[in-house]
Amino acid sequence: MTKIITAHPFDTAIELTPLGDGEFEGRTTAPYANMVGPFGGITAATLVRAVQLDPRVIGDPVSITVNYAGPIAEGAFVISVQPSRTNRSTQHWSITMTQGDEVTTTATAVFGIRRGTWTDTEIAMPEVPPAPDVAVSALPDMISWVGNYEMRFAEGAVDLGAAAAPSSASTLWVRDEPPRPLDFPSLTALSDVFFPRVMLRLGRFVPAGTITLTVYFHATPDTLAAQSDRPVLGRARAQHFGNGFFDQSAEIWSDAGVPLVTSHQLVYFKA
Amino acid sequence: MTKIITAHPFDTAIELTPLGDGEFEGRTTAPYANMVGPFGGITAATLVRAVQLDPRVIGDPVSITVNYAGPIAEGAFVISVQPSRTNRSTQHWSITMTQGDEVTTTATAVFGIRRGTWTDTEIAMPEVPPAPDVAVSALPDMISWVGNYEMRFAEGAVDLGAAAAPSSASTLWVRDEPPRPLDFPSLTALSDVFFPRVMLRLGRFVPAGTITLTVYFHATPDTLAAQSDRPVLGRARAQHFGNGFFDQSAEIWSDAGVPLVTSHQLVYFKA
Repeated sequence: MTKIITAHPFDTAIELTPLGDGEFEGRTTAPYANMVGPFGGITAATLVRAVQLDPRVIGDPVSITVNYAGPIAEGAFVISVQPSRTNRSTQHWSITMTQGDEVTTTATAVFGIRRGTWTDTEIAMPEVPPAPDVAVSALPDMISWVGNYEMRFAEGAVDLGAAAAPSSASTLWVRDEPPRPLDFPSLTALSDVFFPRVMLRLGRFVPAGTITLTVYFHATPDTLAAQSDRPVLGRARAQHFGNGFFDQSAEIWSDAGVPLVTSHQLVYFKA
Repeated sequence: MTKIITAHPFDTAIELTPLGDGEFEGRTTAPYANMVGPFGGITAATLVRAVQLDPRVIGDPVSITVNYAGPIAEGAFVISVQPSRTNRSTQHWSITMTQGDEVTTTATAVFGIRRGTWTDTEIAMPEVPPAPDVAVSALPDMISWVGNYEMRFAEGAVDLGAAAAPSSASTLWVRDEPPRPLDFPSLTALSDVFFPRVMLRLGRFVPAGTITLTVYFHATPDTLAAQSDRPVLGRARAQHFGNGFFDQSAEIWSDAGVPLVTSHQLVYFKA
């Protein structure tokens, strides 16, 4: 009997070849394609992966800000990561993704060594039925990357033929499809699975794209290991729309009620 | 009669000398000193100012992320700003502040040309009495920079001798002292006037410092001009504390109820 072992499409998408001196080569993959270029979440995840692969790294991701400066064409890209400053327990990274002479993406990240402190969560986990009790949503076929996620919307599902919604809030159970144990790159990608809120508000397709995404990691390797490949709970909501831009904020919770990330993004739109 | 015209301390603090090739020299000033180094808000404001002064700039600030990589010593610093990509209506900047060979601060910013679109504000302006009906707070003498702000707390004033608070929310009217018409640099600085939320929760001084600050600008030159030098309403609240870091989010509103910025930061702490 022959057993064929295939890499998870997520691992294929974030695979990088070290070129030395903080440079890594990767390539876009069809499963994570968006309408134009790759899904922003996979790009952010690949940048986190590049820093993790750099032998100079200390600790785990604490925060990352990714700026989607220009379109990423299908094919190869180079990521350059440089530690701009290394302190005792935190390390600041400057990151650039290029294709040929063009900068497609810039980012800064903070990695750090965590230690126990006073702990408290001021925000509340949304109250929704457990994942198995929420139906899996059918998602638009035309956008490849959504096929890599199982989404169960408790509130605010994408429905471009629907009426305009009074609130932009979406709450959903979500996991990689097929299931894959959660790690920092996959958690980074999950921080961007919340489609542009303007489409929910207006109930129709609107040209929109993330300009800048920030992720604050509250998860530790232990909370990630405890969560493994079960669905996490995500919630996203916009704050203000106007003059061509809007911002949206998101939270991702473990199914045990531990906040894993808080995340924010600014999105351009035309409507 | 001799009339002595003195620059506002804010303008002195963000004053920069162009050195060419996107480099600017500035210096720390005593009025904006924090316990160690300068107030993070004045550093962020000075980075915005540097991009504004660069002849290559297009449009107004749309977002900035500032990473406080290491301490800034009293004295001179150099800011280097480079456009990493210029699109039709947005421009991405990479920014580094150095003292000698040391990187003290890194940042990325997006500037852009705004155009009218559908507009809506989903978050609500906090309901508080108008600024003249809220008492001006006495602020700790030992921290210089707070002397440059008039703060009127409707909720969550800093009181390090107080009991631990169940919520980290603060809501306050705030303006530059002496009054100064609002502009993008001063609005950037205001986004960081909310002291570390952990001190409010624990009711005592706690070693803490911002690691990374993101500001999303909803204000336009018109809304800034309309607001002029009257107090704006700020609100800040933490989300999660644990393992040496916490995040806090803030909103700043014009007195006419227009959202001017939403802002987020990750803070390290020891408690």
